[in-house]
Amino acid sequence: MSPFEHLQALVAEDMSAVNALIRTRMTSEHAPRIPEVTAHLVEAGGKRLRPLLTLASANLCGYQGQHHVLLAATVEFIHTATLLHDDVVDESDQRRGRPTANLLWDNKSSVLVGDYLFSRSFQLMVETGNMEALGILANASAVIAEGEGLQLSAAQDLATTEEIYLQVVRGKTAALFAAACEVGAVIADAPKAHAKALFAYGDALGIAFQIVDDLLDFGGASDVLGKNVGDDFRERKLTLPIILALAKADTSERDFWRRTIETGKQNDEDLAEALTLMKRHGTLAETRQKALDWASEARNALAPLPDSELKTALADISEFVVSRVV
Amino acid sequence: MSPFEHLQALVAEDMSAVNALIRTRMTSEHAPRIPEVTAHLVEAGGKRLRPLLTLASANLCGYQGQHHVLLAATVEFIHTATLLHDDVVDESDQRRGRPTANLLWDNKSSVLVGDYLFSRSFQLMVETGNMEALGILANASAVIAEGEGLQLSAAQDLATTEEIYLQVVRGKTAALFAAACEVGAVIADAPKAHAKALFAYGDALGIAFQIVDDLLDFGGASDVLGKNVGDDFRERKLTLPIILALAKADTSERDFWRRTIETGKQNDEDLAEALTLMKRHGTLAETRQKALDWASEARNALAPLPDSELKTALADISEFVVSRVV
Repeated sequence: MSPFEHLQALVAEDMSAVNALIRTRMTSEHAPRIPEVTAHLVEAGGKRLRPLLTLASANLCGYQGQHHVLLAATVEFIHTATLLHDDVVDESDQRRGRPTANLLWDNKSSVLVGDYLFSRSFQLMVETGNMEALGILANASAVIAEGEGLQLSAAQDLATTEEIYLQVVRGKTAALFAAACEVGAVIADAPKAHAKALFAYGDALGIAFQIVDDLLDFGGASDVLGKNVGDDFRERKLTLPIILALAKADTSERDFWRRTIETGKQNDEDLAEALTLMKRHGTLAETRQKALDWASEARNALAPLPDSELKTALADISEFVVSRVV
Repeated sequence: MSPFEHLQALVAEDMSAVNALIRTRMTSEHAPRIPEVTAHLVEAGGKRLRPLLTLASANLCGYQGQHHVLLAATVEFIHTATLLHDDVVDESDQRRGRPTANLLWDNKSSVLVGDYLFSRSFQLMVETGNMEALGILANASAVIAEGEGLQLSAAQDLATTEEIYLQVVRGKTAALFAAACEVGAVIADAPKAHAKALFAYGDALGIAFQIVDDLLDFGGASDVLGKNVGDDFRERKLTLPIILALAKADTSERDFWRRTIETGKQNDEDLAEALTLMKRHGTLAETRQKALDWASEARNALAPLPDSELKTALADISEFVVSRVV
């Protein structure tokens, strides 16, 4: 059993309730386009890692009620809404191995179904009556939108530092991971130190998760190249492997990055050249190590929480998210 | 002094606080694109009628605190976010007499700045700590998104009834007007009957406002044609003047509407023909009368509230919104 399956098994009953709630709330009496688009995405077999984190965090903190189910569905709706909007912003045509909603329908459907899901998530959290949880999720939403905005300006700018990259990653991924964990603690009325620990866990886990994603876009640290390698490079996204390579670049290498990323003039040999440069400086291995470091940080962040099978399962999830590059 | 100026004068001090708050909260430390886009829209000189309604409603209900300022800014942010997304969905290039953000920047900026403002609005309401107000605004947001979704499917469908049109109008306009008024009462802890009366007022006012807008798109009920007449017709939007004309159409008229609206095959003479048909059946005058009826309904809805200068000013706003077609 993988760490992910272990965690799933521990909160299986709660997760069934979340799935039922998602199905109920994604419908719309009046606008048939809405459940059509949502079903395409919601039923595409995402792992639902974020709601799992909320359920596990709440249970780990001894929560006895049912409001964690509302919060877990909230988190998945926010995630789905941002995916719909991200695909419009990034002009993507593939998501989870299937055509995106903006390709199957159109941008307008993705925009407004995203808005609908965001509103629905908002209604779900209001039902918990927990103002602190609402504040956490409101802040996370703002960080997500800000991260997307930052990425628009930073993505093709060679001056982008690892610090700015981290900020983008927090917006894209870690903010919702962290909030998903923290609201679990908050709904359980856990001690502040436990809520803080779960926030830190989700933050580090999300960063590790996103760095792995960005590394896999260059085929990972191995020498075996998978499919779809180089999408970020072709879309001129300045992710960590390139940022680290830029820090070690000589003049001619800098010119290469300027041409391919900043001005976007790429030819068929450039991806191979980019990989050669990154390997010469060891930046793929360096990126991999940073992902592993963040995964350790996630595991360590759980220290203040009492030991339990759920805590072990959460700790192991940190290895699971980096397992694709280990 | 117009009824609008009268209302403005009565809440001028509060409105200054709202404007200052909007300026503070629309910035983003990290993503410079965000305040750029927002400023374009926020400073384009919208009337800020919705936040005025919130302030007036709260004051009318005797509110003494400062949280109505947060709610008024919330309402304006939600409005601005929906404008940004609407312009993407409708592929518009003009708004308030200026080029739209999606034209000046791009769709992606409009999508994510809209998301950012929506998140910011959410943070603002959380600051009030008033769960009932949050619930009202969450529900309004869902109705807005659903109304847009409904419009996507209903706009070009000749089977669209006046009832469906009203539902779209409630989503597009009336839901936020009604919520803007209701949260003013709720933050003031007013009796339920007063909150309900202010909701009904905002709902009817918003419907009157939107019907007037749709009527003016055909030049109003007068014989003088203004600029930009026929935009909705060219965009094949089935608004009330056409719905009423369809109800009275003979076979050849039905064919005309089917061709121009459903299949979208239009030529240069079609707008004139559409106007001729609408005038033959008196549907522009009928539409105007319906706007006036909703304006009266708005005025009457205020009956349960105690008399005051603010109540009179709100009542007069109902005449103000239809004054363009009187």
